Amino acid sequence: MQKPYELWYWPTIQGRGEFVRLALEDAGAPYVDVARTPGGMRAMLRMLRGEGAKGPPPFAPPFLRDGALVIAQTANILAYLAPRLKLVPRDEAIRTAALQIQLTIADLVAEVHDTHHPIASSQYYEEQKAVARKRSVNFIKERLPKFLGWLEGILERNAAHLLLGRSVSYVDLSAFQVVCGLRYAFPRAMARIGRTIPHLLALHDRVAKRENLARYLASDRRLPFNEEGIFRHYPELDRAR
Amino acid sequence: MQKPYELWYWPTIQGRGEFVRLALEDAGAPYVDVARTPGGMRAMLRMLRGEGAKGPPPFAPPFLRDGALVIAQTANILAYLAPRLKLVPRDEAIRTAALQIQLTIADLVAEVHDTHHPIASSQYYEEQKAVARKRSVNFIKERLPKFLGWLEGILERNAAHLLLGRSVSYVDLSAFQVVCGLRYAFPRAMARIGRTIPHLLALHDRVAKRENLARYLASDRRLPFNEEGIFRHYPELDRAR
Repeated sequence: MQKPYELWYWPTIQGRGEFVRLALEDAGAPYVDVARTPGGMRAMLRMLRGEGAKGPPPFAPPFLRDGALVIAQTANILAYLAPRLKLVPRDEAIRTAALQIQLTIADLVAEVHDTHHPIASSQYYEEQKAVARKRSVNFIKERLPKFLGWLEGILERNAAHLLLGRSVSYVDLSAFQVVCGLRYAFPRAMARIGRTIPHLLALHDRVAKRENLARYLASDRRLPFNEEGIFRHYPELDRAR
Repeated sequence: MQKPYELWYWPTIQGRGEFVRLALEDAGAPYVDVARTPGGMRAMLRMLRGEGAKGPPPFAPPFLRDGALVIAQTANILAYLAPRLKLVPRDEAIRTAALQIQLTIADLVAEVHDTHHPIASSQYYEEQKAVARKRSVNFIKERLPKFLGWLEGILERNAAHLLLGRSVSYVDLSAFQVVCGLRYAFPRAMARIGRTIPHLLALHDRVAKRENLARYLASDRRLPFNEEGIFRHYPELDRAR
């Protein structure tokens, strides 16, 4: 029997780890969420100091351990895992298109982070609130419609209304997560933009109903969104337009 | 004979396109820098509207066309190209480590961009100068040493003092470019930090001397840095610490 995958991520937030977790859960793959186990946080800090990895140490969580391999960077972890989990075809052209979409989603996620932390990750939100408001205005007005419109366009052109080909791939799961997170963080903005992205919202609903994922989402393994993660609900940052 | 690769990127800046260009130039691969040819910019704008690509359209330049494939996202382009250009071994574990490093460099590059555009890419620097100053203080104090120290640690642990294995790979070329750009944008900060990253600076020099690259760097194909690109020199943002 294969050793379970080890997912290493901050134990109290969905954050970037959730994109990996969704793939593992959807595939029903055996995995340990290491930092949520006793002593796991201390072990993770050791790994971040570069102890125990043969290759380059992770710059930040999440990272995945598969046997001797330690792999960091969310999109990279998914590009490695997805063919093994049958969440992307083996064909190189399709895997390349998948990584392109995943990296664009990662860019969106980084911009979501910066709506509440436009100056410094290491400082409190309250210290950069006025700037956060300005950045959020721009994000909601320009960036969010551009990113979501881009995803919508891809879904529209594919007769299967998936981001890639004819079966659900890991990028569809990530798109689901982005919709969940954005609805939590920016409910007013999303209510308005929602009308322009019917295929993306339909994809969200379709992914949520997948058997393994539905079970996962209802379990206590799915952490609630909160104001420590990437998608944070600060009503003062959420505008209809 | 193989058709030349097509690199598509804004014609007046190094920007993210430069990471791809360095790989193509170093390998001596035939390529066309499409937007620098007559009519190229108009053709690029058509591609960005999704005309002509079978897969997902690029969200933004750079993108690469190789036959029927159109590939966007810098790190993704490099992950695709590098094995073909012999700038990374075929071995999956090493390619995964390479992509991990490249994506961490991409994160650094995105943070460099945000030092001068912390609120909105679509607004002028002058409109966000005060915030840019705050973000730059944090970048120089916390983020820059963390990123460069991480690269330095990898170089230090490898007896060959390269980021991966025993021969120069595309991530070494990207690390070279990051040092060039940072020295241009933040000469005072880099003069101070330089003392703590001897291996990274030595790698920069080693890469600069590679035959094809030295020829490229001396040619007019290498655009100068300027204040339209990602690495911009605004003296007011550059602090020794």
